[in-house]
Amino acid sequence: MTAMAAFEPSGVITLTTDFGLADPFVGVMKGAILSRFAAAAIVDLTHEIPAHRPEVAGFWLSRCFEYFPPGTVHVAVVDPGVGTDRGILCMAAGGHALLAPDNGLLARIRARHPQSDIVRLAPPGLAALGIRHVSSTFHGRDIFAPVAAELAAGRCLPAALGAPVQGLAGSPPTPGGPLGGSVVTVDHFGNLITDIDAARLAGTRDPRIRIAGRSLPMRQTYGEARRGELLALVNSFGVLEIALAEGSAAAALGVGPGASVTVEEEG
Amino acid sequence: MTAMAAFEPSGVITLTTDFGLADPFVGVMKGAILSRFAAAAIVDLTHEIPAHRPEVAGFWLSRCFEYFPPGTVHVAVVDPGVGTDRGILCMAAGGHALLAPDNGLLARIRARHPQSDIVRLAPPGLAALGIRHVSSTFHGRDIFAPVAAELAAGRCLPAALGAPVQGLAGSPPTPGGPLGGSVVTVDHFGNLITDIDAARLAGTRDPRIRIAGRSLPMRQTYGEARRGELLALVNSFGVLEIALAEGSAAAALGVGPGASVTVEEEG
Amino acid sequence: MTAMAAFEPSGVITLTTDFGLADPFVGVMKGAILSRFAAAAIVDLTHEIPAHRPEVAGFWLSRCFEYFPPGTVHVAVVDPGVGTDRGILCMAAGGHALLAPDNGLLARIRARHPQSDIVRLAPPGLAALGIRHVSSTFHGRDIFAPVAAELAAGRCLPAALGAPVQGLAGSPPTPGGPLGGSVVTVDHFGNLITDIDAARLAGTRDPRIRIAGRSLPMRQTYGEARRGELLALVNSFGVLEIALAEGSAAAALGVGPGASVTVEEEG
Repeated sequence: MTAMAAFEPSGVITLTTDFGLADPFVGVMKGAILSRFAAAAIVDLTHEIPAHRPEVAGFWLSRCFEYFPPGTVHVAVVDPGVGTDRGILCMAAGGHALLAPDNGLLARIRARHPQSDIVRLAPPGLAALGIRHVSSTFHGRDIFAPVAAELAAGRCLPAALGAPVQGLAGSPPTPGGPLGGSVVTVDHFGNLITDIDAARLAGTRDPRIRIAGRSLPMRQTYGEARRGELLALVNSFGVLEIALAEGSAAAALGVGPGASVTVEEEG
Repeated sequence: MTAMAAFEPSGVITLTTDFGLADPFVGVMKGAILSRFAAAAIVDLTHEIPAHRPEVAGFWLSRCFEYFPPGTVHVAVVDPGVGTDRGILCMAAGGHALLAPDNGLLARIRARHPQSDIVRLAPPGLAALGIRHVSSTFHGRDIFAPVAAELAAGRCLPAALGAPVQGLAGSPPTPGGPLGGSVVTVDHFGNLITDIDAARLAGTRDPRIRIAGRSLPMRQTYGEARRGELLALVNSFGVLEIALAEGSAAAALGVGPGASVTVEEEG
Repeated sequence: MTAMAAFEPSGVITLTTDFGLADPFVGVMKGAILSRFAAAAIVDLTHEIPAHRPEVAGFWLSRCFEYFPPGTVHVAVVDPGVGTDRGILCMAAGGHALLAPDNGLLARIRARHPQSDIVRLAPPGLAALGIRHVSSTFHGRDIFAPVAAELAAGRCLPAALGAPVQGLAGSPPTPGGPLGGSVVTVDHFGNLITDIDAARLAGTRDPRIRIAGRSLPMRQTYGEARRGELLALVNSFGVLEIALAEGSAAAALGVGPGASVTVEEEG
């Protein structure tokens, strides 16, 4: 059985966008979902992805989607190419379905789930769901929301939406050498969250983390450091994080997204 | 059958306020709703309406409410007059019910739905729902939320809440001449969203949009413009919008809400 | 029957954190809840508690939780000690259950509900729910969310989670003398919200409120003051609030959280 055929909807839909919450755009997407599937349980993952940065959405989604019930439909709309001929993809991975523009957003998830199946949404598949005349500027409301609703309601399967694709737009993220990477995002507390997976640290004896000219030891938890001390740890999403105990590492180090991080073996 | 009699609840309630999300005010309104109607599906439209600007709430609501299922109850609380004797209105339009203070918030919706019915909430109607002793500062929690819950649960109809009214407080918005208008709001991406309806542009041959001393061509979609180029388009809510491809038109033009916009015929 | 035994779940879960909404942390907690209890109705109370300020979370929760249906599970995660050996508490009060770190967050609620029962979560109680291997940095997702889901689903009772405790970490808040207090938080509108309970004002004849060198009269509602006038009132949460009619009292007075407030009897 393929990943696509294995999709059994849970009724849950998550939303990840760069829309922010000040405008009614997210609310209207929910209206469009509920208009087709009144029993949907809709969860906001985040709407504060930096504008037009699909790779950040892909990072968080790749680290978060499996905390939702199998059968969840994850909608990610970070879509500077809306209205052009960029495609829209539906990926089936780990019992979940993910909808996103074909702009690299799904690259990290594909890399972690090489057995996933992907289709590109095509007009016949959309027409079968009654999706025909859509705006050229708000596909979140006019395509993503109704497709997610139909998938979550169990009225269509990912495979029915279009033809399989192999290659994705956007190159998969390339780790910066065997023991390096970069800061993907700075969280609400000023923690620097990197793209360095815990698995890559596993083979390193007494690793030290270099960032912004500093060399930091690894800890297990924030509580091991004294207030105001910088530390590095594997965070709860399985990636290397640089933190400042009860403070902002971003402010203390003066760095943000894109900053280079390297792992060194002590001795 | 009047608009009021046609209201059949969907169980969905939307909330639009100027409360922001930092305080628990919106959460407490949801508690008050769920205390009366546990099965309510509550959707945030936006809580970032500029403080005390009911006309902005009315603009967004007028452009958004019909994306929700018929039978939805829309609650809008932008209410600088809370605690004074300003009224509270319930409007029935297009199969939806809308609750708002009588301060002009509903004027745009009334203008687009002249057949709508409106009642002014009165003490007997509220007492029949057990709403008696209310705070003088938080009608969102103490009046709007319980009334919305009862409407959404199908336990009362709009017409039972009070007596019909004809005139609304606040003049309906007047378009600034046959081919002019203004910026209502700036969205998360810096797009300038105007109150000029697409229908008013329809009769204009090769229109050009004047704003902040610039004259802009009309496009179909963001993707038609080069990165960094200003453009005007009819957005997905049916109004004229001025945008900057992959950037902020508000920053580029140095204008915001209230800025004048005119439409000129080329040649 | 003890408070614990009286807990009958409503299916509603509220979340109060200092996580903000920019990151997917809150969304992932909801995923963890829905993975165990698909029918949960999850409401955000606020996620903008100042970082590492559990007493502010406790203040709002103490003033808000009873607006939710009896049987609601309230989760509060403001937890600078995550990963240390600080405990996690479950309090049963007024038919509600509250989960929070043992860092003073629950002190105000305990003070207002002295009959409440409290247990400290213990490994056997968690193991019985299948909660064993948890991250050292995200107990919101790995402990609070699953415990809340099981309580809300009616599959375990507070008393089964651990052993009763009497004393709480953190001293209960001490009012600053018989007629004094301080500003706990500044709301979205710039209103200064104090910890002075309405009951403490009740015995005072013609009280005047002193703050930042000013002496203000008490009003019933915002509408009684002229635009731009400072006023004090008992707000809808039952505490003294200093406001500026249609403006920001915080900006006008130049004060914020922690500012001293005293009540004086006129004459």
